[in-house]
Amino acid sequence: MEVPRASYHMTPDEFRKHGREVVDWIADYYERVESLPVLSRVEPGAIRAALPARPPVEGEPFAAMLRDIDAVILPGITHWQSPNFFAFFPANASGPAILGELLAAGLGVQGMLWATSPACTELETHLLDWLVDMLALPPAFKSSGAGGGVIQDSASSAALAALLAARERATGSRSNESGCDGRLVAYASTQAHSSVEKAVKIAGIGRANLRLVDVDEAFAMRPAALAEAIARDRRAGLVPFFAAATVGTTSSNAVDPLPEIGGICRAEGIWLHVDGAMAGTAALCPEFRRLQDGLEWADSYCFNPHKWMFTNFDCDCFWVADRAALVRALSILPEYLRNTATESGAVIDYRDWQVPLGRRFRALKLWFVIRHYGVAGLQHHVRRHVELAQRFAAWVEASPAFELAVRPPLNLVCFRHVAGDSFNRELLERLNASGKAYLTHTTLAGRFVLRLCVGQTATEERHVADAWRLIEKEAAELERGGPPAPRG
Amino acid sequence: MEVPRASYHMTPDEFRKHGREVVDWIADYYERVESLPVLSRVEPGAIRAALPARPPVEGEPFAAMLRDIDAVILPGITHWQSPNFFAFFPANASGPAILGELLAAGLGVQGMLWATSPACTELETHLLDWLVDMLALPPAFKSSGAGGGVIQDSASSAALAALLAARERATGSRSNESGCDGRLVAYASTQAHSSVEKAVKIAGIGRANLRLVDVDEAFAMRPAALAEAIARDRRAGLVPFFAAATVGTTSSNAVDPLPEIGGICRAEGIWLHVDGAMAGTAALCPEFRRLQDGLEWADSYCFNPHKWMFTNFDCDCFWVADRAALVRALSILPEYLRNTATESGAVIDYRDWQVPLGRRFRALKLWFVIRHYGVAGLQHHVRRHVELAQRFAAWVEASPAFELAVRPPLNLVCFRHVAGDSFNRELLERLNASGKAYLTHTTLAGRFVLRLCVGQTATEERHVADAWRLIEKEAAELERGGPPAPRG
Repeated sequence: MEVPRASYHMTPDEFRKHGREVVDWIADYYERVESLPVLSRVEPGAIRAALPARPPVEGEPFAAMLRDIDAVILPGITHWQSPNFFAFFPANASGPAILGELLAAGLGVQGMLWATSPACTELETHLLDWLVDMLALPPAFKSSGAGGGVIQDSASSAALAALLAARERATGSRSNESGCDGRLVAYASTQAHSSVEKAVKIAGIGRANLRLVDVDEAFAMRPAALAEAIARDRRAGLVPFFAAATVGTTSSNAVDPLPEIGGICRAEGIWLHVDGAMAGTAALCPEFRRLQDGLEWADSYCFNPHKWMFTNFDCDCFWVADRAALVRALSILPEYLRNTATESGAVIDYRDWQVPLGRRFRALKLWFVIRHYGVAGLQHHVRRHVELAQRFAAWVEASPAFELAVRPPLNLVCFRHVAGDSFNRELLERLNASGKAYLTHTTLAGRFVLRLCVGQTATEERHVADAWRLIEKEAAELERGGPPAPRG
Repeated sequence: MEVPRASYHMTPDEFRKHGREVVDWIADYYERVESLPVLSRVEPGAIRAALPARPPVEGEPFAAMLRDIDAVILPGITHWQSPNFFAFFPANASGPAILGELLAAGLGVQGMLWATSPACTELETHLLDWLVDMLALPPAFKSSGAGGGVIQDSASSAALAALLAARERATGSRSNESGCDGRLVAYASTQAHSSVEKAVKIAGIGRANLRLVDVDEAFAMRPAALAEAIARDRRAGLVPFFAAATVGTTSSNAVDPLPEIGGICRAEGIWLHVDGAMAGTAALCPEFRRLQDGLEWADSYCFNPHKWMFTNFDCDCFWVADRAALVRALSILPEYLRNTATESGAVIDYRDWQVPLGRRFRALKLWFVIRHYGVAGLQHHVRRHVELAQRFAAWVEASPAFELAVRPPLNLVCFRHVAGDSFNRELLERLNASGKAYLTHTTLAGRFVLRLCVGQTATEERHVADAWRLIEKEAAELERGGPPAPRG
């Protein structure tokens, strides 16, 4: 009989060795990711079929895991970190962010309370204050006053937190105590992110009490339509309490007119939440800040460094102008979490700013990113992405075969071939099947539209130029009725 | 004038270099963490005071960041990875988990849809099926039938997801559509985790519609009290729809009687969610599985590998017996997320199983942990932790000055000095001020109780023995009316 081992843990020295192997694997990956087909080509079930049906009884050497990353996992990866990734919004990463995440995993602290790691809370508060200055956000969002910022996992969770704070303010804790009464009404444009509808459902407001307000020809919310909807609801005895506006919608990067919407919301006592998930990063550069004009009307705001600011997911920055409503909405204090620091009132306990209780040290990676790049470095790369997208838009405009669906305000270009929806649909399939680029689509004014978003960390001019050449070539073949593009 | 740089990105070679530095920093940290005061000693505001008021305009060398980890951050860390950490529930980590997290950050994929990285979804589904076997969970939770598992960030989010699925099932989408009507009632014991109350508030059910059911002398829910509460609510015309039971409460590791609770819930058509956040890991060992007897009655279940299974936060495993209700509760499909794979119905899109849209590749670290340790290695360490806690409990019992507050079923010991609440409160302060151990407290039957939880990865017999010696020494000094223990 075998003698049982005293410990199965990886020793610090084994960690040094395997840590280097993983670091090298990642560096190698970034050196070759450009050559991999961007969109994974596996069939449903293929990855599972390559995995053993039962877990191992005895431990395996680390080399076996790394080998399987290449053999089993990599074919099932859609390469979000490829410079040829132009789909959705980006989720870009960078060396300093990855190493910040590594350090956070190594420290392995819980930031649910100030006391459970003061540095985790204080660095986060401090960085969110820094970002108010970096992005020229309203000073009301700073923690020095009644407001403050927090890192959420996603803009979806930020929207939910904002909605709950708004519900709390509108009903004076009644909804927390007795539940919703079906009279609260929320507003967003028809172009708002799906997370608003999801939040409205989760919070017990009900989808029927979310008004999707009409947009103008640039797909921005029409303030007059918002005002009409509110008036109609008031006449019906309902209680308008929450509006979500967007700086850079997911479909087309449309920017809702915040000054007008803000004025209406303030007059009506409606909580205004503004979602700048991707486009918010552009405010690093003074020349793009006009896009967030009117943000001083907002009760809450979020943007995602994990989209376009080189900080790997998850890192959504969320601010409120009045943290009291948010904390009242989400606060719980059981005996086993009581502690002197909390009771002193001198500290922030971020567990009361979010849905989950636990939280990891996400501020580290954001800190590393800001310090590695500096404000100037971040500005440089954001400007460059916008410039490349605008160049692409110019090529589209100059081509007789293609047209812009809307003028791109920043780094997202919505365009289509003039031959109509089914042609564009097929064109998209061919582009993505080529493995050389990955684009996604939307519909705008009922028409199928291709989206090309420039925001991946390593995307350079040649990648955008290659994508355009590929689009022209595939479109030309499709026009000639050619066969589907061969893979690879 | 300076020529602007072409790129501020960290190159792969710089990443190799700095990656090694961070890996070494972490290995060094684990070699010395035992010598650091477990609970951070900084005053509120001290960390912020050490940070520059404004972000850097120009980038800084990586060495500056690493230096500040030691100089600025470390004093503000409460060392959850210290073997002398006995507070709350553990949030243990391990080498393979940290490296899995690193790899996930490096790949930087979004797993919101199957198509956005099939391996991210399929590995997760596969591991959650593995765990059904590893923990002897009901086969209904496997993805091969109507059920399935998913990784959430926390047991709080799992409780919310379960509640939303239950609400959906109870009201046939009406609550999603029209909001809550104030008639739904939820149940949990007085000892249930605060996340149940938080979820009830978030979902618009209202705290007044959460019944906190009485417990027996072992702090487990009294099924008769549950049945009575349900009957009372039915007579009042209310709609009982959700009950949360716990395998291992946070206060005292009490185990609710699932067979009786399950029978009642099934007969009443109530969704039963079971939370095994920490204690669930014990089911790796056949001898502890009796604690989850009756789990086959549950509609949903969760446990946290990020607590006691060597997998760094966040990693909560959540299963449902019928995934349809969960997906109906949380599904949203805007045009920009439509794709062939989703429409085929042949794949899982995990975005519909959680509140956020985005999700990172958390299955990687769980995979690495299971493969590195093997089932046998995980069992070994879980058994060892339970054995050490039981040994500690025996020391408490043998001491005339101390008593157990409750018989410890697993790895959490609730105990107190016989001298009463204020003595125990002061004793806890002294223990934590010593820096040599970190314990937290709870109240049980109205009395202040110390909690010692053995679950940190590196905790060995000597750490538990040292903690007991420290407790005896500090108590003896306190009995003699000595001065507060000196620090360090």
